[in-house]
Amino acid sequence: VKNFILADQPSLIAMDWGSTKVRAYLMHQSGSVLERKESEDGATRIAEGGVEAFETAFSRLTSEWSLTYPNLAVILCGMVGSRHGWREAPYLYCPTAISELHKGAVAPSETMKSKAWILPGLAMLNGNTFDVMRGEETQVCGILTKMTELNTACTVVLPGTHSKWVRVRNGCIESFRTYMTGEIFDLMLRHSVLRLQLVKSESFDPVAFEKGITYAERKERLELSAQLFSLRAEGLLTQVVPNELTEMLSGLLIGKEIHAELPNILPEEDVVIVGEEAVAKRYEFALKRRGLHPLMPVFDAAVAGMWNQACHAGLLG
Amino acid sequence: VKNFILADQPSLIAMDWGSTKVRAYLMHQSGSVLERKESEDGATRIAEGGVEAFETAFSRLTSEWSLTYPNLAVILCGMVGSRHGWREAPYLYCPTAISELHKGAVAPSETMKSKAWILPGLAMLNGNTFDVMRGEETQVCGILTKMTELNTACTVVLPGTHSKWVRVRNGCIESFRTYMTGEIFDLMLRHSVLRLQLVKSESFDPVAFEKGITYAERKERLELSAQLFSLRAEGLLTQVVPNELTEMLSGLLIGKEIHAELPNILPEEDVVIVGEEAVAKRYEFALKRRGLHPLMPVFDAAVAGMWNQACHAGLLG
Repeated sequence: VKNFILADQPSLIAMDWGSTKVRAYLMHQSGSVLERKESEDGATRIAEGGVEAFETAFSRLTSEWSLTYPNLAVILCGMVGSRHGWREAPYLYCPTAISELHKGAVAPSETMKSKAWILPGLAMLNGNTFDVMRGEETQVCGILTKMTELNTACTVVLPGTHSKWVRVRNGCIESFRTYMTGEIFDLMLRHSVLRLQLVKSESFDPVAFEKGITYAERKERLELSAQLFSLRAEGLLTQVVPNELTEMLSGLLIGKEIHAELPNILPEEDVVIVGEEAVAKRYEFALKRRGLHPLMPVFDAAVAGMWNQACHAGLLG
Repeated sequence: VKNFILADQPSLIAMDWGSTKVRAYLMHQSGSVLERKESEDGATRIAEGGVEAFETAFSRLTSEWSLTYPNLAVILCGMVGSRHGWREAPYLYCPTAISELHKGAVAPSETMKSKAWILPGLAMLNGNTFDVMRGEETQVCGILTKMTELNTACTVVLPGTHSKWVRVRNGCIESFRTYMTGEIFDLMLRHSVLRLQLVKSESFDPVAFEKGITYAERKERLELSAQLFSLRAEGLLTQVVPNELTEMLSGLLIGKEIHAELPNILPEEDVVIVGEEAVAKRYEFALKRRGLHPLMPVFDAAVAGMWNQACHAGLLG
């Protein structure tokens, strides 16, 4: 009986701690998730409160688990490790072997040393092009851990506020590039001269979306800042309605991102899209149009990545 | 004595009525400005109040003049003629002869008919690229009126929130293109993830500005949305300070605009920059770097344009 109980013991708290949200998982030693909690104490939101705010937010979310199971290890990823996070886990520079992310991990505090680790983000310097990520590297780790059938050369696309295109070669993140696609979309919708011509909608209008994509594919060299204004003018001069114009904006932004990245993708590569279903489906649509067949995993890539890194780091004994 | 007084009589009120500001000029029949008034009743700001708000704003600024000189003609340009302005003056489509702008003018109201005109804006449809302007066409008219030595092929650059590049051929506005350069700069500064790394400054740092321009000139195909995020990353990974990063952002945005427009400029063309001194100087700097020698008139192009159109329209008797 005792053995049975021990085998059922949780062994890890994994926390995906982003800018706006925290997701905490109580994990069994097999890697399965036993419980899940969430809070709005995102790293950006509580940054002003300093270390104490992070400690409080951590306790609030996990103390129940820690009291019940006193010896849980803890692994964290995301903005919690930024300069304004709980404690800074300095960036590792690309290329970085996915299995070695944990080598850049830091403990949130002295008292948590050896039982809690914040995973580092990745940085890149290519000529004068700089780039950073925090959290996505752990998701990529999760993808490679669980999708063992992937080609050794693959591209992982992580759409969102700051969309990442991550080039993986033989288990290494070789390079990546970030597009402010989601943020620019949001800025246009909320703060720009276009805002009164746009409308936030949950539905998907593939015809208008595809029209926006074709705008992104013009042979003529057109700058984004000109194409955004052209959408405004189209709204003024034609019968296009706000919902359509919003879809066209989405298609334009995603289309430009994809158009710029396609030349970097080799014919034999697998392409994996990791993100919320609604936005991932838009990228899938746009990539299929260009002859690609992206994979869309349904598991939680961050959880899988944290679990993998906790194992590599020896956190699970 | 009477003749002398008559000759000194003002004959026109010219109003440059933009989104955020109104500038009114009392003009002598020789075309010189006798008095100047300004208000914050921009068309966007008072649009909610409808026609009455425009009538009130107009009276407030001009009634003193009208009472003293009862038979003044009135000419207006800018957003006052938009759909949400005083009265809509529908766009004329390019190509349009500069001398014929007034043919699309409308009276603000029935009672003001034949003594007051709102000049129209210009629209363009080129393939699926749409564009509009309101007010800049009148500035271009003023430029051509006063700078009679210009080549018959010239490009007028009007930097600002929405920068315009206007191609003029033999007295016609053949086409134009708008870049949301100023607005994107402002959105980044005030609302984006970059906002804490940037700072609004009146000074000019040519070294950092030029660095931003070189980022815009990369041979590698880089999307604006990626380059904006790269600036953020550079701010995180290097010792660059907010003032420098802000200059680099300015250089990047202006540089991309110029880089896209340069192929459209013929070797024999004159290039004229019309805008506020601080921003005009940045465009001058960036264009000189590319071997161009832009002209920078110091007169008020809008006033000159309105005067010219009032003459053409027969408003001055």
